[in-house]
Amino acid sequence: MRYLITFSYDGTNFEGYQIQPELRTVQGCLEKALTFINQKKETKVVASGRTDKGVHAIHQKAHFDLQVEITIEKLKRALNSNLPDDIYVKNVEKVDEEFHARYMVKEKEYRYYLNLGEYNPLERNYVFQCCHSLDIEKIKEGITYFLGTHDFRAFVTENVEKENCVRTISDVKVEIDDNNHLVLIFKGSGFLKYQVRNMVGLLIRIGERKRDVVDVRKMLEAKKRIESTPRAPACGQYLIDVIY
Amino acid sequence: MRYLITFSYDGTNFEGYQIQPELRTVQGCLEKALTFINQKKETKVVASGRTDKGVHAIHQKAHFDLQVEITIEKLKRALNSNLPDDIYVKNVEKVDEEFHARYMVKEKEYRYYLNLGEYNPLERNYVFQCCHSLDIEKIKEGITYFLGTHDFRAFVTENVEKENCVRTISDVKVEIDDNNHLVLIFKGSGFLKYQVRNMVGLLIRIGERKRDVVDVRKMLEAKKRIESTPRAPACGQYLIDVIY
Repeated sequence: MRYLITFSYDGTNFEGYQIQPELRTVQGCLEKALTFINQKKETKVVASGRTDKGVHAIHQKAHFDLQVEITIEKLKRALNSNLPDDIYVKNVEKVDEEFHARYMVKEKEYRYYLNLGEYNPLERNYVFQCCHSLDIEKIKEGITYFLGTHDFRAFVTENVEKENCVRTISDVKVEIDDNNHLVLIFKGSGFLKYQVRNMVGLLIRIGERKRDVVDVRKMLEAKKRIESTPRAPACGQYLIDVIY
Repeated sequence: MRYLITFSYDGTNFEGYQIQPELRTVQGCLEKALTFINQKKETKVVASGRTDKGVHAIHQKAHFDLQVEITIEKLKRALNSNLPDDIYVKNVEKVDEEFHARYMVKEKEYRYYLNLGEYNPLERNYVFQCCHSLDIEKIKEGITYFLGTHDFRAFVTENVEKENCVRTISDVKVEIDDNNHLVLIFKGSGFLKYQVRNMVGLLIRIGERKRDVVDVRKMLEAKKRIESTPRAPACGQYLIDVIY
């Protein structure tokens, strides 16, 4: 039987989502818990995608197959009692054997949180402590240049010659939330490694008036990293939702 | 010259405020940074009071004396660059040599945050994950019994025969904040060790309808711990402000 889970995690104390030998990862913790539940049969988990070290998730999704007979209520309880306190399974549902958590993603939403005010030690792992004012109107203008289908080669790490870097961003938004944080919202069919943090890094430079809004278009058209813009820190990034 | 600082800290990774040999404490970090700034002359810090392991502070206050000549702007910068990232000095001011950060406290405000909804791994160290509904009307009624001057012996740890446990609570409030947390607010001239967490523990029991609202008055009148109520976890407690 195939199951789809929706789960949330605090990325602070993980070496990223993806399993790595000897390291504490979200996938590693999930597979350990599921293998135990699945009568010690090694159980693999397929998530909608990876998140980097330090990145958080509110509604990450993943599928896996179990041999044991178990109700979804019991499975949720069993997972949460076998997972560490920085991962929490919010929902469990049965899905078709054909369902695939990565290949069938229609849309993902990422948010990036910035504190433009004074440094706050209590949110240092959860909001990027930018701690200086930014020209929000410039950021609002710059972010719209990301909309649509582009080759995002300039916004990933270098040396990715072979990979297809064409992705579509279907919606962007800039908000100030109740806690007075600047929130940059990106929705799209898929995102490349470091893409969100590199886009945010350029938008911060634009907000600082060190780069121009048209540099977004220039970098997209160049299809390579013409100039290094600092990658925004992982702690401000959240995978908010995955739509199938 | 005597200085008064206002500072904030994330209590999660400290063994409490008060200095203890070999342990990571807020006072230990402050004194280390100040001793360095004060040309290696051992410098003692006097705070408004201690906070327990895991308790956070938004506007904690403390005084100390420096021999070196330094502007308040430079002192703020020097402190923040010599402190770890979970303590932040928000304000520095010069005060009279007679000023005393502990003896001259007029009022303190504490808040206690509870999540009554589903477990949230991202706030596990910052909001008590109570995770079940409570009768908020009962809590609102129960909390008012704490108002006024009482012997709070029943709300501290046992075996405090000798200490004077009479304290005055001048204001209490129950709110739901923007993040849908239940917030219990206490203002008073001073609070005893574990007093806030023991008061909150009883209020949670009242919200669960396992204790009656009049049990607050009964416990205050008994002047001893008649029955153990669980002490609420430290992570939900914040020292919000100190007034002189």
